This record gives sequence, structure tokens and C-alpha cells, in this order.
Amino acid sequence: MKDASANANAKRLAGEAAADLVKNGMVVGLGTGSTVAWTIKRLGERINGEELEFLGVPTSFQAESLAIASGVSLTTLNVHPILDLAIDGADQVDANLFVIKGGGAAHTREKVVACSARRFVIVADESKHVEKLTWPVPVEVLPFALRLVERKLRNLGGEPVLRLGKMKDGPVITDNGNFVVDANFGTIEDPEELMALLCRIPGVLEHGIFDNLDELYLAREDGVERIKRT
Amino acid sequence: MKDASANANAKRLAGEAAADLVKNGMVVGLGTGSTVAWTIKRLGERINGEELEFLGVPTSFQAESLAIASGVSLTTLNVHPILDLAIDGADQVDANLFVIKGGGAAHTREKVVACSARRFVIVADESKHVEKLTWPVPVEVLPFALRLVERKLRNLGGEPVLRLGKMKDGPVITDNGNFVVDANFGTIEDPEELMALLCRIPGVLEHGIFDNLDELYLAREDGVERIKRT
Repeated sequence: MKDASANANAKRLAGEAAADLVKNGMVVGLGTGSTVAWTIKRLGERINGEELEFLGVPTSFQAESLAIASGVSLTTLNVHPILDLAIDGADQVDANLFVIKGGGAAHTREKVVACSARRFVIVADESKHVEKLTWPVPVEVLPFALRLVERKLRNLGGEPVLRLGKMKDGPVITDNGNFVVDANFGTIEDPEELMALLCRIPGVLEHGIFDNLDELYLAREDGVERIKRT
Repeated sequence: MKDASANANAKRLAGEAAADLVKNGMVVGLGTGSTVAWTIKRLGERINGEELEFLGVPTSFQAESLAIASGVSLTTLNVHPILDLAIDGADQVDANLFVIKGGGAAHTREKVVACSARRFVIVADESKHVEKLTWPVPVEVLPFALRLVERKLRNLGGEPVLRLGKMKDGPVITDNGNFVVDANFGTIEDPEELMALLCRIPGVLEHGIFDNLDELYLAREDGVERIKRT
């Protein structure tokens, strides 16, 4: 049986451990989520305690707010197009380090940041780590193309559901002004093939499968496990 | 030597010939450009003269305005997700009917309309018809991702140029709120391979290569040539 406070403690340990990856002078992508929030808070402590100096590129308004509150100096991809490191959360990570993100409807920006970094690290608790991906794939869609995208997703074997807002009538609108469709493909046997098919659908801005994870910091009840891409 | 008025007449003949494809009860995508403008005008004449009844889905504000002025009843892809036919212009069409579009920065919407149609027809004058594609490929890009996309385009052998506005300072902004990068790949030997690579770049909404053309109505000085996909 799970101990909620032990799990919360593990997430904190994993998030804080990832903060040790940041060195003086780095430019670092800062992601969103309850585990990576511990990373950002720990970076704030290191800025105060060790006079750590680095620049952050937030992947969301939420990450930006927390970074500002923690005393992190920020920059943009226009000023610093190449990041030394990006640290983010995930909805699911499989045995081959394919990742599904987009529960927060920010996966397009998160993917741009992750792909701008020399090294991409995810911090997550062990409930996110699975043998094969089963999470519905978030797909950011141009509103004009909704019906076409839904049809194409069905042709690929997916069951698309337009994501609806809470505290907002009608669909969720992303920071880029688009819709999100959650496409349930059941168990995803070949994420690489699905990525190649999803990106060809006209009107798809970005899907939530990531293939560029370098290292996973996994919060287990008995500590932090680091899983590197082999 | 070319005769400009003969060429203008040929474009008119090709555009008007394509209007004959529209039958009563159809839902038709209506594109943009000087040749397809003749199609829309001719459809207006048929609405008045033959009591032709059909619904149009415009690909741009320009096409919408001309359709309204010509008396075409309009609908949307939400109401009619599948079109019987789409007719549009092109920047370049190669010997295998691969197409480059996007000179008007509207290729994303044009591709969604074209891919929503059972049959996709392009009207163009013979200067657009080439053995192999050489036109810079228009790529609609999320502003946040500009530097990453430029870098990835260079890695693919392209020379990216951010499209700048006229009558507007700074970059062109598309109807979807994004930038356009024109990526010069020289002669494109394998458009299908390039399409697969371009769509995988994070932050790319849509590139301007189309692979779903069914028939080309080509305006030649000596008449209209119809080239079908074999």
C-alpha cells in the first residue's frame, strides 16, 4: 500500500536532485508540474546559498511565476536559442524513454524548449513510469482543422476527444490560441511510427509524444532512481 | 517570346474551365490567386445563368470576399467537414504533381481545405509547371520556436529567410498569428522525404508542400491542358 507522505517526499527528493545538474553560467529550460516545482524551489535556495548564477527559460506561465518568485533570472529562446539543459515533468514515460506530455495543454512550448536543449531531463514519480505508453496523446489543433484532424486520428486507430475547459465554457484554448484533442490509441506499441503519422496531419501544431529524453529522475518511495538513455 | 495578353487569356480559360467541375449540391473549397479568381467569377455567372446551387468554403479572406461578391453561398468545415471538390492556385507544380503553395502565407488553411476534399484541382499558368520543385518552401512557424526551426531547417540543407511584411514593420503575421519562414532547398529531388522531415520539426504548424493534387488545369498560350494524377 502506498504511503502518500512517503510519495510526496520522494517527489521532492527527485525534484531537488535534478537541481544539482544546474551549474554556473548555464541556460536552463524550466518545466511545469508538482515534481519540477521542487527543482525550481531548490534552484532558488542555491542562488541564495551558493551564489549560483544561471538563466532560465520557462515553458509556461506557471513555471515563469515560480521561477520569478524563486529569484531565477529569465531569458528567452530568441536571446539564447540553445539551452544547456531542460528539466520538465511528464504524464507518462515508457521503458524506452518515450514520453507523453500535454496534460497542461502546454506540450508545444515544452517540446520546443526540450528540443532546444543539449540535454533533456524529466523528473516524475514512479506512477508515471510504464512498460508501454497508454495515456491519450494530447494533440494541439488549429480550430479551423478540428473535423479533419478528428477524422484522420480515427483513421489511425485513435479515439479523439476535444478537451473542454473548466472555469471556461467550450473547449480549452492553448497559449497559442488553439484547441487540444486527446487521442486515445490504447496501448501504443510503436511510438516512433505514431509520431511520424501524427505530424503529417494538416492542422496539427504539435502532438504530445517526445522522443528526445536523455535521463529520467524517478521518485520512488525508497529514493531517487536515475535512468539514462542507453 | 511571350505575349502577356495571350497568357492572361489562357489563365482565364483555365480558371473558367475548372468552374465546369462544380455540380448542383456540391460543397467546394475555393482558393486564392489570379487564375482561380476566374473560376469564382465564372461560378457566379453559372449561379445567375443556370441557377447552379452549391456551397463554398473559402481558403482566405480574399477568396471569401470574391465569393460573396460573386453570389456564392458559403459554409464552414464545421458544418460540412467533407468537401466534394477543392480548387486552388499554386506557386509551383512538379512533373509528379507535388505542389508548393504559401506565397500568400495561407498554405495551412489551404492544405486543411485541400485535404478535406474528395478531389483537389489546381489551376495555374504554365510558368508554374516545372520538372522539379525549386521554389523556397513556405513554413508557418510558432514565433516562440523561430530560432529552433531555423536551425533545424539549416540541418536539413535549407536556407531559411523570415518573411518580412510590406505595409507592416517586422515579420508577416499569418491569419493564425504565426510567422512564415521561406526555406530555400535549391532543387528538391525527393519532396516526399522532405515533407516527412519538415513536419517533425517542433514549432512548425505546416509547410507548403502538398502531395494530394488530383488534377492540374494548366493555362497554356494555345489552350488549357488537363494533367491527371496517374
